[in-house]
Amino acid sequence: MSTHAETFRALHHGERPLVLPNAWDHASAAVLAAAGFAAVGTTSLGVAAAAGKPDATGATMTETLALARRLARLPCPVSVDIEGGFADTPEGVAGVAAELAALGVAGVNIEDGRPDGTLADIGERCETIAAVKSRAPGLFVNARTDTFWLGAGDLRETLARQRAFAGAGADGVFVPGVADGDDVRALAEAVDLPLNVLFLPGRHTVAGLAALGVRRVSTGSLLLRAALHAVRETARAVAGGGDVPAGLPAYADVVALLAADTDQPLDQS
Amino acid sequence: MSTHAETFRALHHGERPLVLPNAWDHASAAVLAAAGFAAVGTTSLGVAAAAGKPDATGATMTETLALARRLARLPCPVSVDIEGGFADTPEGVAGVAAELAALGVAGVNIEDGRPDGTLADIGERCETIAAVKSRAPGLFVNARTDTFWLGAGDLRETLARQRAFAGAGADGVFVPGVADGDDVRALAEAVDLPLNVLFLPGRHTVAGLAALGVRRVSTGSLLLRAALHAVRETARAVAGGGDVPAGLPAYADVVALLAADTDQPLDQS
Repeated sequence: MSTHAETFRALHHGERPLVLPNAWDHASAAVLAAAGFAAVGTTSLGVAAAAGKPDATGATMTETLALARRLARLPCPVSVDIEGGFADTPEGVAGVAAELAALGVAGVNIEDGRPDGTLADIGERCETIAAVKSRAPGLFVNARTDTFWLGAGDLRETLARQRAFAGAGADGVFVPGVADGDDVRALAEAVDLPLNVLFLPGRHTVAGLAALGVRRVSTGSLLLRAALHAVRETARAVAGGGDVPAGLPAYADVVALLAADTDQPLDQS
Repeated sequence: MSTHAETFRALHHGERPLVLPNAWDHASAAVLAAAGFAAVGTTSLGVAAAAGKPDATGATMTETLALARRLARLPCPVSVDIEGGFADTPEGVAGVAAELAALGVAGVNIEDGRPDGTLADIGERCETIAAVKSRAPGLFVNARTDTFWLGAGDLRETLARQRAFAGAGADGVFVPGVADGDDVRALAEAVDLPLNVLFLPGRHTVAGLAALGVRRVSTGSLLLRAALHAVRETARAVAGGGDVPAGLPAYADVVALLAADTDQPLDQS
């Protein structure tokens, strides 16, 4: 197990929840690492958007692996969203996960939502989680269920999936889309694994989620959407004579993000 | 010559200067096209930052060509920053340019700044411009001189380079870094080609530059830097309980950016 993987695991059991901001390319990840975030995740929507490919359909394996290779050189642990696993069989997904672990990636998200908007069979997902943990025991496997994300949020179904994934060896469970505090608390109390939720602006605060028992808070596509908003509004300000935002990083600051890890070897464990 | 190339050329001779915002991946380009910008450029710093490679050293040819292939499917003309040309000989640069033209790219920027911070020989650059125009006559070749960007801004040297590049067949000249109005006016009046300058926040307005004779205003790395600022500040707001910016595109809006051009064939020239 790499040092990054050990650090990443411990971050789920600290005094406060792990706030895991999600990046989609080297620059967005490096700026977050430089800002002091303890770890960085990836967002599959961001990777897809950067490449101009569809999200959550398994179309971006090449881009995701290339990004993982680059981000593994950052000075903080990195967790990679691999959607459903980029393969049709548990062994295939385990192979992808083992490749990521070998690059020095600390964790992965594996989801049960399928490209057609339905949920994968629980048994099949449990086999996949078990296969991944068998091939890459040190990798933090965050098992995501899309019961709330794709559906109406059936709490009983969600709890059943959480327990099954925990039994299969998952290291954490992720339920994006859950908003209601009672639901969050019920999910946090149901299994003895760190609960990860997606930060919903206006609905959540990290402190509030911490009080409900959440151990990890992800930003999902929020930072990508904030970036695209800034791109559009800054371009409009230039064209229309409006104010360009102040406090932007300078050209040299961006160059420094590229040079920061040049001398660090790839983490090969 | 493709329709996009014809449109792009005409945009340099409209009532107002062409405001050319610079993108670095599909998402940043697509959001600008969707916002109604008439054309989109690329920024080599952005392409380098996304890939985690150094800027302006010829390290990103693969990434630049892959991006060009994707952006050529956008519904507006696209101009690609190819740094010094990604090759050591005029014929090599012409080959890169011809490949871009075949993809449906409307224009390129070719600079005389070298990775070591010095300026390339005028004669060599003129040969390169002539070779590119010979292989890809329809491509809008924007000849960039880095006299101001890398140096103290020697006006006489800049004018000499502008005239030489115009004589070699360039379609436009680009002088990033020039701030002073008298300098801008002198450059705009010196040759009969559209002058492109880099927008400097706090120093320039598009209306002011238009009055000085500028025909194209680029944003360079500004939108990238605004995006990275938004990433960092939004993540900090989530972690610290601050306000997340309002008016962000929704998940579905980003998905729409990916689907927007799915049915459009590649523009094959």
